[in-house]
Amino acid sequence: MKRVVIVGGGFAGLNAAKTLGGEADIHVTLIDRNNHHLFQPLLYQVATAGLSPAEIAVPLRSILSAFRNIEVLQGEVIQVDFKNQTVMTDFGPVEYDYLILCCGSKHAYFGNESWEAFAPGLKTIEQAIEIRRRILYAFEQAERIHDPNGQLKYLTFVIVGGGPTGVELAGAIGEMSRFTLKKDFRNINPALTRIILIEAGLRILPAFSKSLSDRATRDLESLGVQVWTSRKVTRIDENGIDIGEERITAGTVLWAAGIKSEGLSKTLGIELDAMGRVIAQPDLSINRYPNVFVAGDQANFSHQEGKPLPGISPVALQQGICIAKNILREINGLHRENFHYENKGQMATIGKKKAIAEIGKIRLSGLLAWCIWLVVHIYYIIGFNNRLFILLKWATSYITNKKGARLITNFKWRFYE
Amino acid sequence: MKRVVIVGGGFAGLNAAKTLGGEADIHVTLIDRNNHHLFQPLLYQVATAGLSPAEIAVPLRSILSAFRNIEVLQGEVIQVDFKNQTVMTDFGPVEYDYLILCCGSKHAYFGNESWEAFAPGLKTIEQAIEIRRRILYAFEQAERIHDPNGQLKYLTFVIVGGGPTGVELAGAIGEMSRFTLKKDFRNINPALTRIILIEAGLRILPAFSKSLSDRATRDLESLGVQVWTSRKVTRIDENGIDIGEERITAGTVLWAAGIKSEGLSKTLGIELDAMGRVIAQPDLSINRYPNVFVAGDQANFSHQEGKPLPGISPVALQQGICIAKNILREINGLHRENFHYENKGQMATIGKKKAIAEIGKIRLSGLLAWCIWLVVHIYYIIGFNNRLFILLKWATSYITNKKGARLITNFKWRFYE
Repeated sequence: MKRVVIVGGGFAGLNAAKTLGGEADIHVTLIDRNNHHLFQPLLYQVATAGLSPAEIAVPLRSILSAFRNIEVLQGEVIQVDFKNQTVMTDFGPVEYDYLILCCGSKHAYFGNESWEAFAPGLKTIEQAIEIRRRILYAFEQAERIHDPNGQLKYLTFVIVGGGPTGVELAGAIGEMSRFTLKKDFRNINPALTRIILIEAGLRILPAFSKSLSDRATRDLESLGVQVWTSRKVTRIDENGIDIGEERITAGTVLWAAGIKSEGLSKTLGIELDAMGRVIAQPDLSINRYPNVFVAGDQANFSHQEGKPLPGISPVALQQGICIAKNILREINGLHRENFHYENKGQMATIGKKKAIAEIGKIRLSGLLAWCIWLVVHIYYIIGFNNRLFILLKWATSYITNKKGARLITNFKWRFYE
Repeated sequence: MKRVVIVGGGFAGLNAAKTLGGEADIHVTLIDRNNHHLFQPLLYQVATAGLSPAEIAVPLRSILSAFRNIEVLQGEVIQVDFKNQTVMTDFGPVEYDYLILCCGSKHAYFGNESWEAFAPGLKTIEQAIEIRRRILYAFEQAERIHDPNGQLKYLTFVIVGGGPTGVELAGAIGEMSRFTLKKDFRNINPALTRIILIEAGLRILPAFSKSLSDRATRDLESLGVQVWTSRKVTRIDENGIDIGEERITAGTVLWAAGIKSEGLSKTLGIELDAMGRVIAQPDLSINRYPNVFVAGDQANFSHQEGKPLPGISPVALQQGICIAKNILREINGLHRENFHYENKGQMATIGKKKAIAEIGKIRLSGLLAWCIWLVVHIYYIIGFNNRLFILLKWATSYITNKKGARLITNFKWRFYE
């Protein structure tokens, strides 16, 4: 009986577990801080009140409950003892024959960690709820005060980072202000909301072709989003943001500019890259410890494109499956195979009927790309119920322009007691 | 132009606002701490992972957006200056010609406020999410440890208070442990979960007839819930609960034993009852200030039954409408009418196909009562989308025994940084 321990229930960990599920001579322990697998690609919809958290987050143990050889434990891995093949957790040690590390990533502020308080990133359900609270409460504050400068501040949203997450956030805030909130306020006009997307590079969505990134820019502008490229943020505080000489007063600043590997990597005492990712061998194992594998955002795999593969779910998903298959091969006395990422294309959505997709040489935009985006995301989301509910929610909000989850929670009021 | 200020967007405040909506010569300002109206009767379903928060909480401003004479402001009322007819809020003063106070209630621990940390009550979305977190995480903890005493502790749930909320919570936890979680764990058997419902009175659901409360007790027992009546809690701590001489080790204790009026009442300097509720005149105005009204859980209305009307949504709803109509009458030079509560009956649900209902002399239980409960709640929930989604969720979880929102959020891990 071989013991496989998987740290992290994201796309890599979940798919590794599924691949090993039902194998008689393997016992799998999946450890995650959270009780749920999070469908990251739709997290921005929770942050912008389109979906409820539970619709994109499903309990890991219910996804895997059919596999009797898999146990799911909610807990935190504090350290790994490679010598004794043991994982140290907050609920005690767990021994392994094979270890798969896929803890994912969190936002990086490049040495300006103090900015996080003023510009949260979007990686977890909690962060999505906090961003939703900030966006919705900004409109509430603008509505209840009468000072025009204050209203301008609260009606200004700055998103830092022109990757897919930044673009999706900016687009969704644009739609919300132009359509969803249109009739709901008396003292302000939400359609006057300023939304600024700041990108340090020459253009947004650099991973896409120039023509598609231009199209995305035009789509964003049609939703009232100003796209500022080649601009570097030099300071963020509670009242706004500095961009070199310029100063923008903003009540809400969101961070989508960079990520780094989760903290566990640092504790491993092995070779990391500048973003804190573990350097992966061609078979996704790590140097000196062939029975330890790394995948997803935590891995730096540069053997295919000369540069690290992007931190996107298809890469993590394929890596998880590859690792699991190699473990099965080895147990059956076969040789491991090296990982090869099969690029099925990439897409990003800007808003209703607005998206871009690049599949090999094919470049799509507008309604068709948006439909493909819809189908792909509905297809990959976990759980039949969720598929059903998300489809219905999107259908209703497509028709009514209403958002389903405009909730401000975790709100701190002073109490009378 | 008469200015009507409503404090609180619960059943009383929302229905008062709707009744005044569209009146040309009236301007309504609705102030609430939260941005949403909460459908309290289904809050226990959020606490037990059946529904998502957004499905029972709808933004007040979107419910009322059609009425141009109503403005909704999210904020906190700190004090009321009756002399100058001004409400002091955290965003400045708001003047009124008529004031409607309906801030609702929160849980009371009868002088043992320190118990709250170990036994949270269920009044707000935040509390429901916290209770959901505690219930789900208790099973996670039992699964990851191997000490039998620890597992017994985490698999023991104590609910204090045998009113509708306590019964609904106990029943839902019973169903979860017997059906929902059945196949999901490897080291524990959720069906061995101990669920104890403690009631200080002679029987649970005292507002119902003896025969129905007996039926509810049997229904609870069939879900594995032990019902302990005539038992007084003497102490609650992090490891369990004392009931006189007896001691029960429990990982999760929930409080549904008593409520008191929201803190604002204390600041008013007017006559309150033992539960901190404002004494209401026959027309729901308050003594000495005929242009100030009180409704819902914040009001003590004893002119009809000799004792205060119960703190349930139908009472609040009818009071809100009555106050609004009296304001309209007065503006049109007519006399006010006294409030009369029209009791349409009461019901409580225990679990799938298990409920009790009392409509006048008619007493129902089992499947029929449950169907009525379903129809009534679907009918009264705000918003077409929510109706649709809740019906679908209940249908799917009825068939699959799965719960739709098994999310553990707001979880505090120590971070590596």
